[in-house]
Amino acid sequence: MARDRNVRNDRRARNAGLKQLPWRRVTNPYKPIEVLSEDQVEAIHNASLRILEDIGMDFMHPEAKEILAREGVTITPGTDRVKLDRGLILEKIKTVRPLIPLHARNPAHDLLLGGNNINFCTVASAPNASDLDGGRRPGNYADYQNFLRLAQSFNVIHMTGGYPVEPTDLPAATRHLDCLAAMVTLTDKAFHAYALGRTRILDALEIVRIGRGISKAQLAREPSLFTIVNTNSPLKLDGPMIEGLIEMARMNQIVVITPFTLSGAMAPASLAGALALQNAEALAGIAFTQMVNPGSPVMYGGFTSNVDMKSGAPAFGTPEYTRAALAGGQLTRRYGVPYRSSNASASNAVDAQAAYESEMSVWGATMGHCNMMMHGAGWMEGGLVASFEKFIVDVEILQGMAEFLQPLKIDEAELAHEAIREVGPGGHFFGVGHTLERYETAFYAPILSDWRNFENWQLAGGEDATQRANKIFKQVLADYQAPPLDPAQAEELAAFVARRKEEGGAPSN
Amino acid sequence: MARDRNVRNDRRARNAGLKQLPWRRVTNPYKPIEVLSEDQVEAIHNASLRILEDIGMDFMHPEAKEILAREGVTITPGTDRVKLDRGLILEKIKTVRPLIPLHARNPAHDLLLGGNNINFCTVASAPNASDLDGGRRPGNYADYQNFLRLAQSFNVIHMTGGYPVEPTDLPAATRHLDCLAAMVTLTDKAFHAYALGRTRILDALEIVRIGRGISKAQLAREPSLFTIVNTNSPLKLDGPMIEGLIEMARMNQIVVITPFTLSGAMAPASLAGALALQNAEALAGIAFTQMVNPGSPVMYGGFTSNVDMKSGAPAFGTPEYTRAALAGGQLTRRYGVPYRSSNASASNAVDAQAAYESEMSVWGATMGHCNMMMHGAGWMEGGLVASFEKFIVDVEILQGMAEFLQPLKIDEAELAHEAIREVGPGGHFFGVGHTLERYETAFYAPILSDWRNFENWQLAGGEDATQRANKIFKQVLADYQAPPLDPAQAEELAAFVARRKEEGGAPSN
Repeated sequence: MARDRNVRNDRRARNAGLKQLPWRRVTNPYKPIEVLSEDQVEAIHNASLRILEDIGMDFMHPEAKEILAREGVTITPGTDRVKLDRGLILEKIKTVRPLIPLHARNPAHDLLLGGNNINFCTVASAPNASDLDGGRRPGNYADYQNFLRLAQSFNVIHMTGGYPVEPTDLPAATRHLDCLAAMVTLTDKAFHAYALGRTRILDALEIVRIGRGISKAQLAREPSLFTIVNTNSPLKLDGPMIEGLIEMARMNQIVVITPFTLSGAMAPASLAGALALQNAEALAGIAFTQMVNPGSPVMYGGFTSNVDMKSGAPAFGTPEYTRAALAGGQLTRRYGVPYRSSNASASNAVDAQAAYESEMSVWGATMGHCNMMMHGAGWMEGGLVASFEKFIVDVEILQGMAEFLQPLKIDEAELAHEAIREVGPGGHFFGVGHTLERYETAFYAPILSDWRNFENWQLAGGEDATQRANKIFKQVLADYQAPPLDPAQAEELAAFVARRKEEGGAPSN
Repeated sequence: MARDRNVRNDRRARNAGLKQLPWRRVTNPYKPIEVLSEDQVEAIHNASLRILEDIGMDFMHPEAKEILAREGVTITPGTDRVKLDRGLILEKIKTVRPLIPLHARNPAHDLLLGGNNINFCTVASAPNASDLDGGRRPGNYADYQNFLRLAQSFNVIHMTGGYPVEPTDLPAATRHLDCLAAMVTLTDKAFHAYALGRTRILDALEIVRIGRGISKAQLAREPSLFTIVNTNSPLKLDGPMIEGLIEMARMNQIVVITPFTLSGAMAPASLAGALALQNAEALAGIAFTQMVNPGSPVMYGGFTSNVDMKSGAPAFGTPEYTRAALAGGQLTRRYGVPYRSSNASASNAVDAQAAYESEMSVWGATMGHCNMMMHGAGWMEGGLVASFEKFIVDVEILQGMAEFLQPLKIDEAELAHEAIREVGPGGHFFGVGHTLERYETAFYAPILSDWRNFENWQLAGGEDATQRANKIFKQVLADYQAPPLDPAQAEELAAFVARRKEEGGAPSN
């Protein structure tokens, strides 16, 4: 029954107006690019352990300090400061899982995190939305839902990034309830929620359980919710994040420890120092998840970039970012922990800068063998804007990368000796059988790139990629169809949301 | 004396308005990305030799056929068709040189082709020029000279691509004389000329000799001229190209054999087939240069891309292009021959498409370990346009790549333990000594990217990357200063050009 439903969904997606790549698990068959020697990896590893032993980290929640104390960790009295012995860190991270399943509402959309699997997520957490028609505006619920519809519509998108845009028009205490209910209704892909305190994460877990139509016991067996835990760099982990982390780890759900180590601001003005700090905070957070629940699924998040030293403005998609994304991959492989990276750009417009910065990020993330690429589509202005046109540009970039990762087929038929003989010197391959057999499938067909010659392109209006992207996202929204949801589940979901709203939602942090 | 002059030039370049990367030899310290297994490389190798043995290739010039006949090659009577035995090909390519110096007018701008050296060339051979002010127009001598000035001004550009734009307002018979004289006068970087018949290449060799101020014997010892020999795919090499190839090889100058194997048009509609054809034509051309003059410097040019199967339009910067560029690198390393690839895009506008297609090309070319990246800056519309704004976008892309290729420094000072301790959990690195010491040098400073926040960017006019590029190229042209040229050399050059113009220049081919 669920299977039939999925087949119908897939057929519907295929038959929509847009010709896109089919849904598939994307794997990276190529060796990662290594920017560090083995000795350099060890030097960063050792530097990070020295930071944790010698300087320590603030865990700003009493429950965290209790958990750490049970492990024999010394806490400076009257403070949140804990110094973490390297022996303890290395012992605790032994239970991390190298390969994590992430169950989606639709089983056809289940993901694997780890190994050479790469998954693409939308933009997450932008406070503003933007498109050419409406301009730049504070995030709102209507835009939020439209980004969910785009996430559902594009097969290359594997997961929605929590709030692609923050719906600031909804009350803060109940925003997560409306948004998670919309996520269950508008998409059937993997779930992502925010670790902003205990209540929100417990609500999210219940909504995911209802959305999947499973028991609490099954949910605890099957990782079905994904959350990012950002450290407050340098060397702090705040209370709401800790609460979310603890509940997620206890319920065997996926926690991604992501230090925000912006070199020159929250991290040293040297990539080596920023990577050492990133690694220290990531190891501390990862080890902590294993103290809460050994074997609970956890990922290493790398987000090291740099600031513009003249202005202090954050920069993304820089050469430093690319090297940090690749170095981060080397560190995660040393520990056998799945890796999260990002597609990032600081551009204010959907222009050449947006595209070259995103490409620099995507190449670093991909060839660093990240398993989840956050902010894969739509991220602008260093995260301040979710752009509808940038979403389409990024989908094209991600489709291109997914296709690049398809191994070349080299066999007698593909080597085409007989076709080359048939055509002969000076001939043309357009009409021959070998070409006609491959007419539909030979090459990647883009959704955005325009390959017409200049005259035809100009006659058709001479629209640049951003103007074309504007039309594409509107067409995809017009064609959107919600994935089916069992009426009983929809009813249970509505009842839960109504009850929790009556109870007042979540306390402010 | 020459040394002093170069120091002055470098100082002048540094002091110009634009803050850019210094001139340097760029090397790629990372392992190439391999998209083919060893077995797949062998399969393409064998398929290409089978093509040459079994189908053969047309060498459309009597002198070529004489040279081939001396090697015992059988030529089908009354035709240009030669079938090339694999034993002969493999024997002849044994004398190729893995590392070739390319001498420039300014010795500080000498290049190395081979190994892990990567060099960036401007756009070459576009029939049209374009900028935002003047729009798209047929190539002309004024635009040609301006591209030369940009090539000279940007340190990341190692060579000018022959005619960055074709000066169609100059008479065809003497165009090469004016253009090469301008190249000597406006730049002091490496020389690139076209193998369009014997006369033009002999003129180019003489102008290069005068420009470098050396004897003919020294020129023959020191490769100082670079030319591309395109095969007429499939499997033809035309007369003018053959004449140029022969004269260049005889004079120990650099020939780059570049098949134009557009998959689905001039090559099979399968990447494997296109690569086999590319490899066949490249090997045939390379072996031929070694028949003309064993040990003469030769490079393997890869230019395999694909067409849009719906329209037949050529496409560039596609996932297929990237994989072909990487596979091409693997083939060249099998033969130990230096590798040429390209930065290519099919976009009609300097927009997001232009940037993401160029990035896909540049990543393929770079991680395929190409030694010369043709069309590095300014190439648009699949080669039909040289764009001034795209030139600036590409310079930013190339600078980013050059910086990405700088190995990370990992030592005690960079790991920044004391700075992290000084700042402590929750602190900020902006004011600390470790940051201040690195204020000028910590990170790549872009020429084009705008990292201001949205409000400041909008207040300053809200210009996108293409509009900013327009201002930058005009400023660089305004700041341009010609590199010094010895008056005696200038006089000799003028006399040679005048004499050759009186003689009528080159015959039409």
